[in-house]
Amino acid sequence: MDSGKHDTTGKVITCKAAVAWGPGQPLVIEEIQVAPPQKMEVRIKILFTSVCHTDLSAWKGENEAQRAYPRILGHEAAGIIESVGEGVEDMKKGDHVIPVFQGECGNCVCCKNDKTNLCQKFGVNPLKSVMVNDGKTRFFTKDGKYPIFHFLNTSTFSEYTVLDSACLVKIDAKAPLEKMTLLSCGISTGVGAAWNVANVQPGSSVAIFGLGAVGLAVAEGARVRGASKIIGIDINPSKFAKGKAVGITDFINPKDLDIPVHEKIGAMTDGGVDYSFECAGNLEVLREAFLSTQFGWGLTVLLGVHPSPRLLPIHPMELFNGREIIGSVFGGFKGKTQLPGFAKQCMCGSLNLDEFITHQLPFEKINEAFQLLVDGKSLRCLLHL
Amino acid sequence: MDSGKHDTTGKVITCKAAVAWGPGQPLVIEEIQVAPPQKMEVRIKILFTSVCHTDLSAWKGENEAQRAYPRILGHEAAGIIESVGEGVEDMKKGDHVIPVFQGECGNCVCCKNDKTNLCQKFGVNPLKSVMVNDGKTRFFTKDGKYPIFHFLNTSTFSEYTVLDSACLVKIDAKAPLEKMTLLSCGISTGVGAAWNVANVQPGSSVAIFGLGAVGLAVAEGARVRGASKIIGIDINPSKFAKGKAVGITDFINPKDLDIPVHEKIGAMTDGGVDYSFECAGNLEVLREAFLSTQFGWGLTVLLGVHPSPRLLPIHPMELFNGREIIGSVFGGFKGKTQLPGFAKQCMCGSLNLDEFITHQLPFEKINEAFQLLVDGKSLRCLLHL
Ligand SMILES: NC(=O)c1ccc[n+]([C@@H]2O[C@H](COP(=O)([O-])OP(=O)(O)OC[C@H]3O[C@@H](n4cnc5c(N)ncnc54)[C@H](O)[C@@H]3O)[C@@H](O)[C@H]2O)c1
Ligand SMILES: NC(=O)c1ccc[n+]([C@@H]2O[C@H](COP(=O)([O-])OP(=O)(O)OC[C@H]3O[C@@H](n4cnc5c(N)ncnc54)[C@H](O)[C@@H]3O)[C@@H](O)[C@H]2O)c1
Ligand SMILES: [Zn+2]
Ligand SMILES: [Zn+2]
Ligand SMILES: [Zn+2]
Ligand SMILES: [Zn+2]
Repeated sequence: MDSGKHDTTGKVITCKAAVAWGPGQPLVIEEIQVAPPQKMEVRIKILFTSVCHTDLSAWKGENEAQRAYPRILGHEAAGIIESVGEGVEDMKKGDHVIPVFQGECGNCVCCKNDKTNLCQKFGVNPLKSVMVNDGKTRFFTKDGKYPIFHFLNTSTFSEYTVLDSACLVKIDAKAPLEKMTLLSCGISTGVGAAWNVANVQPGSSVAIFGLGAVGLAVAEGARVRGASKIIGIDINPSKFAKGKAVGITDFINPKDLDIPVHEKIGAMTDGGVDYSFECAGNLEVLREAFLSTQFGWGLTVLLGVHPSPRLLPIHPMELFNGREIIGSVFGGFKGKTQLPGFAKQCMCGSLNLDEFITHQLPFEKINEAFQLLVDGKSLRCLLHL
Repeated sequence: MDSGKHDTTGKVITCKAAVAWGPGQPLVIEEIQVAPPQKMEVRIKILFTSVCHTDLSAWKGENEAQRAYPRILGHEAAGIIESVGEGVEDMKKGDHVIPVFQGECGNCVCCKNDKTNLCQKFGVNPLKSVMVNDGKTRFFTKDGKYPIFHFLNTSTFSEYTVLDSACLVKIDAKAPLEKMTLLSCGISTGVGAAWNVANVQPGSSVAIFGLGAVGLAVAEGARVRGASKIIGIDINPSKFAKGKAVGITDFINPKDLDIPVHEKIGAMTDGGVDYSFECAGNLEVLREAFLSTQFGWGLTVLLGVHPSPRLLPIHPMELFNGREIIGSVFGGFKGKTQLPGFAKQCMCGSLNLDEFITHQLPFEKINEAFQLLVDGKSLRCLLHL
């Protein structure tokens, strides 16, 4: 299995992966086959991976359109390149890398435009389950007979995975890969939403709905930007201790209130916050987040994944109150261009990443890691491969 | 009636107004009483007023919550100050003024914030039908017995009207009042949406849905900003001739297509326009406008008034495609602060206002003016008082 001993380049690798066979069914650790990378693809050895709520949603199959089995989930990870496909020139075997579900091809109109981090070719697409090159998978069952589907351009719940090079970021070999794992999704998504998308200003007020890793990373980003009031809202008050550690100044448990959350926030902030962030994936919460901002200029950033087919719970005329809402994918970071710099910033200690890894387990215990997140007990559980 | 002959200051004025008595019923020109202005209020003599689609919506009573009768509608006008109430220092009798339905008190957090043109005290509110000072009307039936309700802070379908001074803008006495009437709503709303709200960039592409005065003013604003492609969409092709005159480069009549408008626009623009503007007040149109913009950075500006109780026809996850939607009231102009400068720009001829006044009638024929707009025959019909 170790690419150090025998050169595996160009060969099929047999290794272990956590395979999802159906909505909500426990993942099964089993042997699979991983084909070599094709043109502009890269095969990597995953060293660490963690579980994000987006994996939970996909695992539960909350949105029927996304159900594709068998499938290898996972998108938050760090690893080392095993081999590169034809044409890959910015990375080589042995490089330390983190996968990014929101790729950057560098050539499409979006990649060439500073206003967006989306990519027309390798953008995140929850319905996508195969590689772009040939519309096929690189994962197969142990006997090589049946394809196993990919997930979010990454599929990191496997000892080896194949990605488009557009979805892989090379980072400094000295950077601690455990922590870099968090940059692969949660931390970048949250901090970037505060920095790149909302552009939080010093002295401003912020409300964060949902204090998982994503929401707490928003708080971290807002704190570093000098926000003076950071209100954290969660129905699970066990999140408040961590919240304090990352700079949240005020907490609200909606269950303790007999008025809507936005009224409470309005009273706490003389009319509303400058920015609110929805990190819970719930439409009622989204509406509260929208109404919690200031009449005139409030901005709501939508981060949560909403599998429900229901439409935005906002009336068109409510937009005439000057409140804005904007979606944020991967914190507005252009992965390949901006993440290496962000990783350096994180290594300098300007951001407090230590609080986010609350649990560590061997890869085999991945179902325990899922349960910890379902139960609201973990922020991120780091799985060691 | 003429304030030149007898000084009417401090006295009740009896004059003619067009009174709305019920949803969709012809307006009745009748004598009414207009009380003197109170503290920080101003009474003006209207010289010109025109009919905007927002008057139509209110007249039809499309939104039940807005039904309040008898009422004096109208918000696009120009006039001369008859008298000012206590405390009004920035204007005096004889000044030329235009009413602005979106007021500017100058003191609230919104007025003090550059990010918005809304005002917490004198913002537009379709439900408001009385003056802020005392919660009462300044209009009464001829016998003085019954109150007649106000509309949009302005009520210009009257020979005399009373406004909060926050809703009145003094303009250069040399400016032609006929044209300045248009700045009171339609032109400022459209041009401002392109300039202040969307901030249309040179060389960009624009799609405008609904080519009434508001939509054509957006085109005018986009043209002046150097947009290279301006697509006009209307189900009434008689609007296309005017459209050409204000710089629209391409026209689409949705009725001529067998594909959705956004697909047609996508094909015409290599993926979508940079900016789209909804100026029709229709939710299906709003969705087409939203989908007509570029994946990644498209911006939809909502100008149309939507009386339907239906919510935004957008799924939260569609915001992850980088498309934004934002509401625009009075083109983002802070009335008192910015309109005098805008009026000067208009007088210098940088904007082509001549195309917008398509009809002129005596005030008494106001119901004809309404019908012209209902029938899609006029842009603005200027009523002479
Ligand atoms: N936009 C992106 O690029 C992106 C990236 C990563 C994750 N996400 C999404 O962000 C969301 C958060 O992810 P996470 O990993 O932090 O999840 P998490 O499960 O760790 O945290 C969610 C938090 O929301 C709280 N919550 C649930 N319902 C609530 C309610 N009604 N009111 C208040 N709080 C409530 C939970 O108690 C929990 O603390 C998920 O929807 C995830 O899919 C989006
Ligand atoms: N936001 C603001 O500050 C503000 C200010 C003024 C007016 N408005 C609103 O802007 C809108 C336009 O006002 P106006 O005075 O120009 O109205 P208008 O009636 O002159 O123009 C509306 C145009 O939309 C077209 N239209 C109708 N249905 C359509 C469809 N399905 N597809 C394409 N085109 C369609 C009509 O043919 C017409 O040309 C109205 O809703 C009005 O209430 C908003
Ligand atoms: Zn994630
Ligand atoms: Zn790209
Ligand atoms: Zn108007
Ligand atoms: Zn104000």
